[in-house]
Amino acid sequence: MTQNMYDDPVFFARYGQLNRSVEGLAGAAEWPALRALLPDLRGLKIVDLGCGAGWFCRWAREQGAAQILGIDISQKMLERAEANTADSAITYIRADLEQLDLPQAGFDLAYSSLALHYIEKLEPLFLTLYRALVPGASFVFSIEHPIYMAPTRPGWILDANGRRTWPVDSYQIEGKRVTNWLADGVVKYHRTIGTTLNLLIRQGFMIRHVEEWAPSDVQIAAKPDLAEERDRPMFLLIAAWR
Amino acid sequence: MTQNMYDDPVFFARYGQLNRSVEGLAGAAEWPALRALLPDLRGLKIVDLGCGAGWFCRWAREQGAAQILGIDISQKMLERAEANTADSAITYIRADLEQLDLPQAGFDLAYSSLALHYIEKLEPLFLTLYRALVPGASFVFSIEHPIYMAPTRPGWILDANGRRTWPVDSYQIEGKRVTNWLADGVVKYHRTIGTTLNLLIRQGFMIRHVEEWAPSDVQIAAKPDLAEERDRPMFLLIAAWR
Repeated sequence: MTQNMYDDPVFFARYGQLNRSVEGLAGAAEWPALRALLPDLRGLKIVDLGCGAGWFCRWAREQGAAQILGIDISQKMLERAEANTADSAITYIRADLEQLDLPQAGFDLAYSSLALHYIEKLEPLFLTLYRALVPGASFVFSIEHPIYMAPTRPGWILDANGRRTWPVDSYQIEGKRVTNWLADGVVKYHRTIGTTLNLLIRQGFMIRHVEEWAPSDVQIAAKPDLAEERDRPMFLLIAAWR
Repeated sequence: MTQNMYDDPVFFARYGQLNRSVEGLAGAAEWPALRALLPDLRGLKIVDLGCGAGWFCRWAREQGAAQILGIDISQKMLERAEANTADSAITYIRADLEQLDLPQAGFDLAYSSLALHYIEKLEPLFLTLYRALVPGASFVFSIEHPIYMAPTRPGWILDANGRRTWPVDSYQIEGKRVTNWLADGVVKYHRTIGTTLNLLIRQGFMIRHVEEWAPSDVQIAAKPDLAEERDRPMFLLIAAWR
């Protein structure tokens, strides 16, 4: 059973103030890189795992997707999604991704943005997705990067010379990480890049692209705080073929 | 032109005292994991990129490989290899991997242990290898892990509580890293995992396995110093299919 922080009133209120909540996809710095991994969406049937407020579902529909199924565990997020996207081609359902059931060969694309690091056991979900996708379909997703997730005490360290470093430890100790992000006690699951890729390969997926996201010069010029993302990656973007 | 540290007398003398030089493959903690990625070697034609003293070439021959070509930039290492392995099925040549020429479809397996992080431009080498391998062949290699390579000042940091962390910075700044390992001024080239995998994929390779190597409990019990490898990975092992 996946933790449902997004229905926590404090977490939900704070999450709603992030750029990616206020501005949608345009407020997520990694979105241009993730979008670049997507196929042409026209006519596709898409499943969005952890759809949140439905920003991607709405955008995918604007790109010509035929049908979109948005799935999230949070009732509050789905209420925002429903309000955000009134379109008969978009359907939202509430479900725990750890116990997901999907129709076989029902989709041409599986998409997920920053949701799968909340999942303890990825293998059953990847198997479900492999069966739910048609041959040649894409699976494109982002997660928090394991370098970002691994440390027992995540946070920049400044040395005497003002040099900023990220204190990696426990990288090989996979499993639960509890952090205080927007609210106390947020549970995430750390896995190495190798573990995630090998789980995909074992289910039959073919790795198409692996990107440890970094901001562009243009992005840093517009938002200097992003420069720290060059010192350690926060996001991992993966594209695979069914 | 790749730097040839192994022909530096100081470096060569010190390298010769490492476990992996004295004991060969058995002295390399990551060898069991790398070996597990290899196919059945019987009857195969193999190329070993950065063969060093020829330990792998000799072992591969013992496993029944038909022909083995060992390539290294270091004259001193090749002299050791020649002395180490007198077998007409094993051939050693001196070459810079950055300017390598190989016969097309001449090999069933390309192998490389801890050599490719000395190479500035991997893409021409990967293209050469793709052409040199037969369809269905394997490419199995290890490199230093980018978490290990990235920092501007690599080395453990101990906090006031004795907690050991690895200070990651500059992870997204790919390129030259100069370290003092065994001798001053050793030049290596840092690349993210994503960059290495995408270079392989772009040449036509299919990713089969990605392993950020960690010691086993048995290994740590036998050699407690290895425990630090659980805090940050030192080696990256990759297996791909042609």
